Amino acid sequence: MKVSIIGTTGYGGGELFRLLHHHPVFSIHSVHTTRDETPLYIEFPHLYGITDLKLEHIDVEEIAKHSDIVFIAAPSGVSSKLVPAFLDTGIQIVDLSGDLRLTDGEVYRKWYKHEPAKSSLLKKAVYGLSEWNKEKIMDAKLIANPGCYPTATLLGLAPVVKEGLIDPDMIIIDAKSGASGAGRSVSKSLLFSEINENFRIYKVNEHQHIPEIQQQLNKWDAGVSPITFNTHLLPITRGIMATIYVKLSENMNTARIIELYNEQYLRNPFVRIRQNGNFPSVKEVSGSNYCDIGLHVDERTGRLTIVSVIDNLMKGAAGQAVQNANLMNGLDEKTGLEYIPMYP
Amino acid sequence: MKVSIIGTTGYGGGELFRLLHHHPVFSIHSVHTTRDETPLYIEFPHLYGITDLKLEHIDVEEIAKHSDIVFIAAPSGVSSKLVPAFLDTGIQIVDLSGDLRLTDGEVYRKWYKHEPAKSSLLKKAVYGLSEWNKEKIMDAKLIANPGCYPTATLLGLAPVVKEGLIDPDMIIIDAKSGASGAGRSVSKSLLFSEINENFRIYKVNEHQHIPEIQQQLNKWDAGVSPITFNTHLLPITRGIMATIYVKLSENMNTARIIELYNEQYLRNPFVRIRQNGNFPSVKEVSGSNYCDIGLHVDERTGRLTIVSVIDNLMKGAAGQAVQNANLMNGLDEKTGLEYIPMYP
Amino acid sequence: MKVSIIGTTGYGGGELFRLLHHHPVFSIHSVHTTRDETPLYIEFPHLYGITDLKLEHIDVEEIAKHSDIVFIAAPSGVSSKLVPAFLDTGIQIVDLSGDLRLTDGEVYRKWYKHEPAKSSLLKKAVYGLSEWNKEKIMDAKLIANPGCYPTATLLGLAPVVKEGLIDPDMIIIDAKSGASGAGRSVSKSLLFSEINENFRIYKVNEHQHIPEIQQQLNKWDAGVSPITFNTHLLPITRGIMATIYVKLSENMNTARIIELYNEQYLRNPFVRIRQNGNFPSVKEVSGSNYCDIGLHVDERTGRLTIVSVIDNLMKGAAGQAVQNANLMNGLDEKTGLEYIPMYP
Amino acid sequence: MKVSIIGTTGYGGGELFRLLHHHPVFSIHSVHTTRDETPLYIEFPHLYGITDLKLEHIDVEEIAKHSDIVFIAAPSGVSSKLVPAFLDTGIQIVDLSGDLRLTDGEVYRKWYKHEPAKSSLLKKAVYGLSEWNKEKIMDAKLIANPGCYPTATLLGLAPVVKEGLIDPDMIIIDAKSGASGAGRSVSKSLLFSEINENFRIYKVNEHQHIPEIQQQLNKWDAGVSPITFNTHLLPITRGIMATIYVKLSENMNTARIIELYNEQYLRNPFVRIRQNGNFPSVKEVSGSNYCDIGLHVDERTGRLTIVSVIDNLMKGAAGQAVQNANLMNGLDEKTGLEYIPMYP
Repeated sequence: MKVSIIGTTGYGGGELFRLLHHHPVFSIHSVHTTRDETPLYIEFPHLYGITDLKLEHIDVEEIAKHSDIVFIAAPSGVSSKLVPAFLDTGIQIVDLSGDLRLTDGEVYRKWYKHEPAKSSLLKKAVYGLSEWNKEKIMDAKLIANPGCYPTATLLGLAPVVKEGLIDPDMIIIDAKSGASGAGRSVSKSLLFSEINENFRIYKVNEHQHIPEIQQQLNKWDAGVSPITFNTHLLPITRGIMATIYVKLSENMNTARIIELYNEQYLRNPFVRIRQNGNFPSVKEVSGSNYCDIGLHVDERTGRLTIVSVIDNLMKGAAGQAVQNANLMNGLDEKTGLEYIPMYP
Repeated sequence: MKVSIIGTTGYGGGELFRLLHHHPVFSIHSVHTTRDETPLYIEFPHLYGITDLKLEHIDVEEIAKHSDIVFIAAPSGVSSKLVPAFLDTGIQIVDLSGDLRLTDGEVYRKWYKHEPAKSSLLKKAVYGLSEWNKEKIMDAKLIANPGCYPTATLLGLAPVVKEGLIDPDMIIIDAKSGASGAGRSVSKSLLFSEINENFRIYKVNEHQHIPEIQQQLNKWDAGVSPITFNTHLLPITRGIMATIYVKLSENMNTARIIELYNEQYLRNPFVRIRQNGNFPSVKEVSGSNYCDIGLHVDERTGRLTIVSVIDNLMKGAAGQAVQNANLMNGLDEKTGLEYIPMYP
Repeated sequence: MKVSIIGTTGYGGGELFRLLHHHPVFSIHSVHTTRDETPLYIEFPHLYGITDLKLEHIDVEEIAKHSDIVFIAAPSGVSSKLVPAFLDTGIQIVDLSGDLRLTDGEVYRKWYKHEPAKSSLLKKAVYGLSEWNKEKIMDAKLIANPGCYPTATLLGLAPVVKEGLIDPDMIIIDAKSGASGAGRSVSKSLLFSEINENFRIYKVNEHQHIPEIQQQLNKWDAGVSPITFNTHLLPITRGIMATIYVKLSENMNTARIIELYNEQYLRNPFVRIRQNGNFPSVKEVSGSNYCDIGLHVDERTGRLTIVSVIDNLMKGAAGQAVQNANLMNGLDEKTGLEYIPMYP
Repeated sequence: MKVSIIGTTGYGGGELFRLLHHHPVFSIHSVHTTRDETPLYIEFPHLYGITDLKLEHIDVEEIAKHSDIVFIAAPSGVSSKLVPAFLDTGIQIVDLSGDLRLTDGEVYRKWYKHEPAKSSLLKKAVYGLSEWNKEKIMDAKLIANPGCYPTATLLGLAPVVKEGLIDPDMIIIDAKSGASGAGRSVSKSLLFSEINENFRIYKVNEHQHIPEIQQQLNKWDAGVSPITFNTHLLPITRGIMATIYVKLSENMNTARIIELYNEQYLRNPFVRIRQNGNFPSVKEVSGSNYCDIGLHVDERTGRLTIVSVIDNLMKGAAGQAVQNANLMNGLDEKTGLEYIPMYP
């Protein structure tokens, strides 16, 4: 099957290239950008000698003629305009932006400060949280690939929220991300000297991933109150950790909680529930599609600590996008994604 | 005044040297270790040409004869044995370890897994949280200098806890520290390749600073329930951030909270309350004795986010130790501590 | 084919595991250590759920019975004792240590400060610089896998030394390596806080890789005088850059030199000669088996600057070891090694 | 004495502020920028509560009326236009840019690709390499403050070049700098994710500091041939190391060389010659005005390795600027500069 990538000069696009180039079923037909038409290796010198593909401008007709799937890794506000034309052509679309994730356009407008996609378009998008929406994804033509923070957070919270085991009024998520999550666009706050040997909280209580997480939690349990969710910038390139604090509504110990998580993620090869007393660090999933989860019930407080880590460019973006494309096409979801984390 | 430093080969001891060497009133008489008697610059080559002081073994009589103040920056379990002898000599003692901070020896035994100091000794120690215990510190002979995490956390929480403005049943502290907080002793988990490009949670719900924070919060408000407190290892050398989540018990907006904090810290030159919409990063206090605090009331949830940052070796250890020594000796607390943060 | 790994708990051993686990022809039979017999994922939590293999002690007979190839990633001084027994069993051996690389035992004794291997053993080892010793490697039973620095340096120098294009009296190599090159053993100088935000020269003019580089250069051109070679510690985990300064003995411009390098490395898929004006950075080969080389003739001085980068754990250790095992067994040398560099 | 700073929003300007704010003789009257007129703490939040100074636009008359000294930390091409007006006012000028360092305007044009300053202006500027130009600096009205790389390199080379102890045809300098040297302007290549966990060579044989180093070496010894000088980008914020390779023209051992350097730098408090066998790392001078130099004669090759490190924002920029201002005004050169390096 032929695939094309739009937005190949950013970090998410680069990671899509890495995965799709090695994929045993998908084959990259073309790569696209709104910038200069140059060989891709000019933008990404690590690809020199690996590919001669030239960046091309975005021509929907041309792309659809030669591709079975298009991956769109563009900034907010692009996909809402671009996707309708692709839908008309009938090819599969995996959209990595936030444009199609929120079912209510007005919520999008409030948090993203952009014009939302049309309601009719939003209805066609299937939310691509692979582990929890597998059947719909398998039938989908258009995937709204989840955000990086929502992926780590929702995989961490799903079992206890779905099973109604926690106080729905107290969900607190303290999230931390590496700098690649902010993309490859230039701004003073992303300079090396500003981030290195530093640690910063940003968008305090205002991150645009809040409504995405809230929406999915409320699908699982309509009674979940507004969550607290904050984001910090780690001086690393890749990796997200969500440290999640919830209150158990019944008395359960750590062993029992771990058992529950293992059951819930039984047939999900990319979620690894750590053993009692063991907690994942972000480097332990770096370069892989794993989401690792550590769990601990604090008997002093009755609160459960959930630690969920992913590589934001993999399970948080390109990896999950490929996983969804696998599912859409009846492939084993692991196809082309069995990378061992690169450690150290 | 003459001072001596015990434990000068660790990072806290090194920082004490930096501050005391430049201090206009205190003058370093001797530096001590249990290790080899070598010139200090062999352990810390950055001091070459700055000092010829030789590390000496610990002889309480000798130290007391030549010093007015002794700073002890030794690992847990040392001070409880060493301090009684110093007390007998009558010199001032500032102890940077955790040995004398907890008033209940059994709590110490449980969390530190060491034999606690005698109860009579614990009673003599004054908890050196400079901003909130100033009068007792001014009269003290023996200071139990606060831990790094407790300093950031307690300075962040004090105004709302003391004023009874929050739900005492929900205090959640998500803390992050640079690696220098773990000291200069060798272990596999502190190797560069294990910490670099990584982020790790550790001692989940079991950090020994929990009882220290809890003890002080309960002094301010006996009704505060067990807190949730977790610690993470940042891939940086210096810096702590405590991100604190509490629930306001009455309706207050961010501006009002900031006003309250400004009032409460009015005469405290080392606490900087950031303006509305502005939050501190750890590098913005690096090398200085500041504790910077950012505040935001999330109207969606009614929760207050408190962001408190310090340099763990300064306000979290050596800086506060010198601040306390200043207070003990009737000096302006800023004496020898007016460092501008080193940015970038 | 079955393979075993000795020294699996170090970084080189971990990387061997990553490559061999995915290798389409080789399959890992067992992993060995001199330490505790625990599941490998206890030492390397990133392997949790990927392998249940348990670390076993080293029993040469047992290993040889079940394996076709043994990879040895042990510290200096181990292989010289261990390899003779393996040789007797007839299985293939790829040794990643420095024990068997120097043909003169006395040179080893001088630079490594260890007892050298017997001369008869040294004679049996084939130096595994894959690109330049391909035929001997294909016939070998015992490979002395090159050091990380020698790999980057020799691949950078080979074309001009072999062709006699430079002044043999002036070869200056300024090399820099990430911290994983120092292995996973604990020492104060490898602590995060000592390496982070730092840059250090070490073993000035005394690095044990000097004789290894010198030996190979002199095989290519006996007239090469003692080289200058220095090493620095980069605050990164993976990556080596050798910046090499030589004097051209005849007048050639950059374009002509690049042409020469392209010719010399024509059938070598893991060496990428950069285009005129382009120079490789270490991240551009990270996680891959590439050696990227940039070249520039400085017309002001008549000197050629050669910039050679590798991932020290890949082409500098485990990657080249697998490449050699491929060659020894008649496989395409790229088998199981076609990783795109992980960028960013 | 009153001083003003032009270009206060960059890293060099920020460091000037840090030094001058604490300086016992100089007092900051005003800070200037071509950007928005906002409080300085908006640009540099670490200065919140420390200063209320507002950034002002550049009005030469106004500045000169209220200041005794003006420090100019602007990008290339600004000072050549701005300085003549300041000269007319008669106040002292310390210019941190490269505009006035090269005595030959055409050389500037070639390497900087800017229009050079007028020859008459260039003649008035005194090159501010404090240790080697002290008398001229003491009489100067206009200082061309040296570049960061030239400072480290020239202090390392001066003794052997001035004494004629090396082969003037072979000087090779392999230099490495932290990212703050590139300033605070935004560009893709300075993004955190591009520099972190990376190491890059740049401006190969084309760095604009080459003619500055060459010019000064030739002042000391007209016979010095074109030097080789290359620069690399370290994934750290502060620090430069120049590793320098030269050939001794007579037989000297390391001890004798160290003795020579100690003699030559006898009355220079900011140059520390390390003891035999000891070499400086960049963190060992971080935050201080020191230049630390390590030396080793390689008996295999007859070459001398010189390792010279500075903090690029201190001795490489703001620190040396203040040192020169001290000298210009008859102060002890150490005034306001006795910072102990911040380690770790």
